[in-house]
Amino acid sequence: MGMTTAEKIFAAHLVDEPFSGTKVLRLDVVLCHEITTPIAIDDLVARGKDRVFNPENIKAVIDHVTPAKDTKTATQGKILRDWARRHQIKDFFDIGANGVCHALFPEKGFIRPGYTVIMGDSHTCTHGAFGAFAAGVGTTDLEVGILKGVCAFREPKTIRFNINGELPKGVYAKDLILTLIGKIGVNGATDRVMEFGGSTVDTMSMESRMTLCNMAIEAGGTSGICMPDMTTVEYLWSFIHDQFATKEAALASYQQWCSDADAVYEQVIEIDASVLVPVATFNYKPDQVRPVTEFSESRVDQVYLGSCTNGRIEDLRIAAQILKGKRLAENVRGILSPATPKVYREAMKEGLIDIFLDAGFCVTNSTCGACLGMSNGVLADGEVCASTTNRNFNGRMGKGGMVHLMSPATAAATAIEGRIADPRNYL
Amino acid sequence: MGMTTAEKIFAAHLVDEPFSGTKVLRLDVVLCHEITTPIAIDDLVARGKDRVFNPENIKAVIDHVTPAKDTKTATQGKILRDWARRHQIKDFFDIGANGVCHALFPEKGFIRPGYTVIMGDSHTCTHGAFGAFAAGVGTTDLEVGILKGVCAFREPKTIRFNINGELPKGVYAKDLILTLIGKIGVNGATDRVMEFGGSTVDTMSMESRMTLCNMAIEAGGTSGICMPDMTTVEYLWSFIHDQFATKEAALASYQQWCSDADAVYEQVIEIDASVLVPVATFNYKPDQVRPVTEFSESRVDQVYLGSCTNGRIEDLRIAAQILKGKRLAENVRGILSPATPKVYREAMKEGLIDIFLDAGFCVTNSTCGACLGMSNGVLADGEVCASTTNRNFNGRMGKGGMVHLMSPATAAATAIEGRIADPRNYL
Repeated sequence: MGMTTAEKIFAAHLVDEPFSGTKVLRLDVVLCHEITTPIAIDDLVARGKDRVFNPENIKAVIDHVTPAKDTKTATQGKILRDWARRHQIKDFFDIGANGVCHALFPEKGFIRPGYTVIMGDSHTCTHGAFGAFAAGVGTTDLEVGILKGVCAFREPKTIRFNINGELPKGVYAKDLILTLIGKIGVNGATDRVMEFGGSTVDTMSMESRMTLCNMAIEAGGTSGICMPDMTTVEYLWSFIHDQFATKEAALASYQQWCSDADAVYEQVIEIDASVLVPVATFNYKPDQVRPVTEFSESRVDQVYLGSCTNGRIEDLRIAAQILKGKRLAENVRGILSPATPKVYREAMKEGLIDIFLDAGFCVTNSTCGACLGMSNGVLADGEVCASTTNRNFNGRMGKGGMVHLMSPATAAATAIEGRIADPRNYL
Repeated sequence: MGMTTAEKIFAAHLVDEPFSGTKVLRLDVVLCHEITTPIAIDDLVARGKDRVFNPENIKAVIDHVTPAKDTKTATQGKILRDWARRHQIKDFFDIGANGVCHALFPEKGFIRPGYTVIMGDSHTCTHGAFGAFAAGVGTTDLEVGILKGVCAFREPKTIRFNINGELPKGVYAKDLILTLIGKIGVNGATDRVMEFGGSTVDTMSMESRMTLCNMAIEAGGTSGICMPDMTTVEYLWSFIHDQFATKEAALASYQQWCSDADAVYEQVIEIDASVLVPVATFNYKPDQVRPVTEFSESRVDQVYLGSCTNGRIEDLRIAAQILKGKRLAENVRGILSPATPKVYREAMKEGLIDIFLDAGFCVTNSTCGACLGMSNGVLADGEVCASTTNRNFNGRMGKGGMVHLMSPATAAATAIEGRIADPRNYL
């Protein structure tokens, strides 16, 4: 009987099975940021266990509130920084080198097909875009991961999404995943792996695959997973060319992690991508999704472009294409946070930053605090934000604020019109 | 008997003299930002006095914490924004258009020779660089200013600083003002106007004059003042060319505000600029100043380039000149906050942003919250920051943190060496 990607990764990393269905896996990478890891560090120190299983397998970044906004966040950064120095964690990204974790770590080549990845962050599922099993965990699991390099998981069942057809003009990975979540609901994939395949995914960039996998958790999914292919190899090539003689050799190696043709899924869902339309969320759950053409009350005060969902270079490119030569609507303020310094520099080189500035956007350093109302664009009571982020919970970007999730293209069109707008009118 | 600039401005704006020595002046400009003005707005509203004397004479900006870091600061911004809309205050600068108030307002041409200027901000004295009388005020004065366009002042006596000679290589306006404050002390000019003249000031850019006047308050001064001259006219020309037939005509008009040759000063202090050296502050008062060559314990964790004191284009140019092709020291994090969007874009066009990024700096949007520990680079307990800002009070940039004030050149050299360094070694 064939196996899914997740099953293959579980089998290859199995260390122990303390009881049926719960498997302890060896971890390839433990990712850390300054909001959740300092709690684990403090606890490990208090327990006299201030050690790390292997500094080379730990990657850390300050990304949520950076530069620090107050003593608390300065202290969180300092705890992480001191810990990284103390344990010779070389891959620590501080102010100046830091960016949004789920964009930065892939960009650095840290995520590979077949890897097991944990982080104390719910959007860790993003990294499944590389054919990895990547899951957000709580403090206890994070501590064990840091100390022992292992983590216990219930072996998740997999829901396969067969997504075929060409995405229409103005429709992107963000519209696809929002539509999927709208279809299956916020609990539709709880404790499941969401495996994305089919011609639509096969032709997607790694950036778009990351957008797709990023929001698996919004349907309850443990990890999103895409099949590694030549797109994956191309993305990683600068990091792996010493390891493989040719790209084809890398591909052959990575494809061992692809789900077998006869793999058994809990459920298979077929999606025709060619009929999708640009969508946005309404109300306060990520599965409350409707076409952008069906919004009546749709005034926005702020447009936010950025985050681990949609702050990458292809996101900035499409938004800039729409914004070029245009201005923000009178009562809209625009914030662009390129996800990483590399994205920022690339955008500067391509003239995108100029376009955003000409349009009236504020361009901030790379950080993701706005998404969860922690910094860099918190809403006041009663304000509405059109946002390329991943969560529209009540008050998520600020108490009393409302968030409409959407693609960068829709956010750009919305910025121009001051109300939720259809990007197809600008393409 | 001749008059000083301050006396001339007082005479020309006199509305009332309720008792001897206290003069009520007509205000040309009331400046506002989102930290102090919302308190005044809320009080005016509560008193049923939600009016402004003239929306054209009021200028407002969100600059201290922008984009908002939390509900409190989002609300402060919203109060200011709603008020500006309600009263048709056209010169309101929101996210995307906003920058550090004392850099932005001059850049917009709002400050002219002979003006009276108030703001609920201690560094309002900056604007005296244009030959204006500009003073920071408390909430009550700000409310009266907003409502009636007047403010009561004790007529300040003037201390004249005759500063002559060429500043040596590596020595800048910041070194000059720090040296002056070191000389006269933090109370050396309390309730006095600090009038800066002499060949050194005459040959200074407007940017450097703003740096000089900006720190008048650190010696207790009510306002700094420089004499308007052709440099002033050139800076303002794009805003005043409709008003004057020629630059010479503008100069002739503006020079009415210059202190007379036979003006009477309370004190005249002579400074030989040619013997000055690069300095930095030690300890927690701005008059605790010593040459950069005399620091022993001088490790720094963070270097901050920005603020109303030194975040202007000439500041970025000199820092970039030193940093070009170099990297931050291992344990130093660097933050650059260009003071305004215009400064940021100019720096981008000149390739300075690339230099800072290559050196390892984080480039933030324009904001000044780091200076007072409000956002954008707050220190943790025990951390040390080399900073181009204006105050080194205990905990100013974060509780338990230490700040060394210095010029942008010295900050750049310090960033490279990781300890307080001499910029002359890099020029």
